[in-house]
Amino acid sequence: MTHEIAVIPGDGIGQEVTPAAVDVLEALEIDFEFVEADAGDAVLEETGEALPQETYDLAASADATLFGAAGETAADVILPLRDAVDSFVNIRPAKAYPGIDAVRPETDLVFLRENTEGVYSGLEDRLTQDVSTLTRVVTETASRDLAEFACDYVSEADEHDGFSIVHKANVMRETDGLFRDTVKSVADEEGVETDEVLMDAFATRVCLDPEQFDVIVCPNLAGDVLSDLAAGLVGGLGLLPSANVGPDRALFEPVHGTAPDIAGEGVANPAATIISAAMLLEYLGYDEESEAVHEAVEATLEEGPRTADLGGDASTEDVTNAVIDRL
Amino acid sequence: MTHEIAVIPGDGIGQEVTPAAVDVLEALEIDFEFVEADAGDAVLEETGEALPQETYDLAASADATLFGAAGETAADVILPLRDAVDSFVNIRPAKAYPGIDAVRPETDLVFLRENTEGVYSGLEDRLTQDVSTLTRVVTETASRDLAEFACDYVSEADEHDGFSIVHKANVMRETDGLFRDTVKSVADEEGVETDEVLMDAFATRVCLDPEQFDVIVCPNLAGDVLSDLAAGLVGGLGLLPSANVGPDRALFEPVHGTAPDIAGEGVANPAATIISAAMLLEYLGYDEESEAVHEAVEATLEEGPRTADLGGDASTEDVTNAVIDRL
Ligand SMILES: CC(C)[C@H](C(=O)O)[C@@H](O)C(=O)O
Ligand SMILES: CC(C)[C@H](C(=O)O)[C@@H](O)C(=O)O
Repeated sequence: MTHEIAVIPGDGIGQEVTPAAVDVLEALEIDFEFVEADAGDAVLEETGEALPQETYDLAASADATLFGAAGETAADVILPLRDAVDSFVNIRPAKAYPGIDAVRPETDLVFLRENTEGVYSGLEDRLTQDVSTLTRVVTETASRDLAEFACDYVSEADEHDGFSIVHKANVMRETDGLFRDTVKSVADEEGVETDEVLMDAFATRVCLDPEQFDVIVCPNLAGDVLSDLAAGLVGGLGLLPSANVGPDRALFEPVHGTAPDIAGEGVANPAATIISAAMLLEYLGYDEESEAVHEAVEATLEEGPRTADLGGDASTEDVTNAVIDRL
Repeated sequence: MTHEIAVIPGDGIGQEVTPAAVDVLEALEIDFEFVEADAGDAVLEETGEALPQETYDLAASADATLFGAAGETAADVILPLRDAVDSFVNIRPAKAYPGIDAVRPETDLVFLRENTEGVYSGLEDRLTQDVSTLTRVVTETASRDLAEFACDYVSEADEHDGFSIVHKANVMRETDGLFRDTVKSVADEEGVETDEVLMDAFATRVCLDPEQFDVIVCPNLAGDVLSDLAAGLVGGLGLLPSANVGPDRALFEPVHGTAPDIAGEGVANPAATIISAAMLLEYLGYDEESEAVHEAVEATLEEGPRTADLGGDASTEDVTNAVIDRL
């Protein structure tokens, strides 16, 4: 069966790392049909829209989407694209790689971030000159969908014993209370072990000893900030992939941005996008191919060639070819 | 002039470290009148109230309050106490000390956290079985008060060039937009330099290179989580002091909790509470005495004696006496 893959390179180094990841996918000779579309600052400039309707529709109908990065318009692009794939969970692995400089080399975490609501509900008002408000929404439905996904996620892989629920229910008693209670009760029903950590305490503890955590289930903003914290512990955003998963389709993107300082020079590190493509393969059921890509990237990170961000002087193409050679 | 100092030890090691800090203050022979009051889990058990009205009233009338820690009831105690002193800013220095194991020994940051609103406004509703909401409030008034304080703060000390405004205005456009614009415009009026960092990017960047930041001005929850992250970078919550400052009075507290595992044994590290007491001295205008306490604590941290959390075997009393001897 042919799978349609939407490819949205976006801005900056998105234009370089996204084609690199497509090259890796093409080298696997799977029956994929790639369809490219525009989004981001450049298309805003040209057309007045950061996310053209065709691009939204493509992501909403393709089997999977590979997205690169967007500049100033990042929020205007990525939030609607998450919505286009109806994504209820953002999977963000944060793992240190052997041979790569990391603040905490023993870090190996997976964040399962709620991807539809919380402060991202975007309901804001300027009530008076002085007062503005934002309505933070937490529903039992979204919390339950995330929890069911998390239970499946940890049950499918032997290496996970359960997950940590990270929240701030001591202050957001009703909303994060509903989140915590719902996630906990789903996990209890499914026989999955959980523990609970306040998000501020998590921030301290993960720096001191990342090995005490494994899979983290949390609301939207907590997932945003704490996964970026974990990125800091593993040496930066450069190697982090992510998946926005919905019931019928999914969107994959590196966690890094457009890197305007090096964009256009052909020296961006394609690793995070290639690892995101490996997550796409797994999502579509190509487990062996996914594993092969993961291993090829890890070997390349360890043995080279490496791009400048990792102390090397290889080009994006050198690294991409090295990964393909190792498949 | 006599200053009335409210002393609220609270629960757990709060009962040990708070008297230790009072001993240090008493050794300075300043005209302080100490008045003790109860709060926390123990008094809840006895009286049905975690924060008795007398305690609230005492904090609301004393010149300054020294608070220890509270257990399960932490939020029920500390949030109203911040309100009792009408505190609009929470000052949280996070600094690594020479000789103390730290993930990032070069960390030396001060968080100026908005202390009255944001998600802490506490306006929550369960709209239906499925849907709960929290109203996040951001006002120009609170943002302005914080900004004016921040401008004075960085202007008074030579070592600060300006501050970073940390926010999430790309998602919370109206509320964090109002926060950011207000703080920036006050700083511009006062000729104080600022830069802007998104809170997720801050979390990554501060791990990779804490020296790029100095003073951070941010909304309430951002300050909670990011200062705890900084605590992780300097080696844990054990050494972090804090000040909740209002227009006429202030409350000082260590950032750590009740440490139930060691409570009652007389081995808790009193350093964070003694440093909080040094902040209290500075607040009341005793700059020299404050400096002397800071230096005595630093010398004690470096040369010992040390409590078990820092690899030593000294008691709370040994450390307190060592600080007093060095005054
Ligand atoms: C660009 C921004 C809206 C986005 C988010 O906050 O989710 C980004 O930080 C991310 O984590 O993918
Ligand atoms: C106990 C809790 C309500 C409090 C907060 O969130 O402000 C604590 O984490 C702190 O930072 O002092």
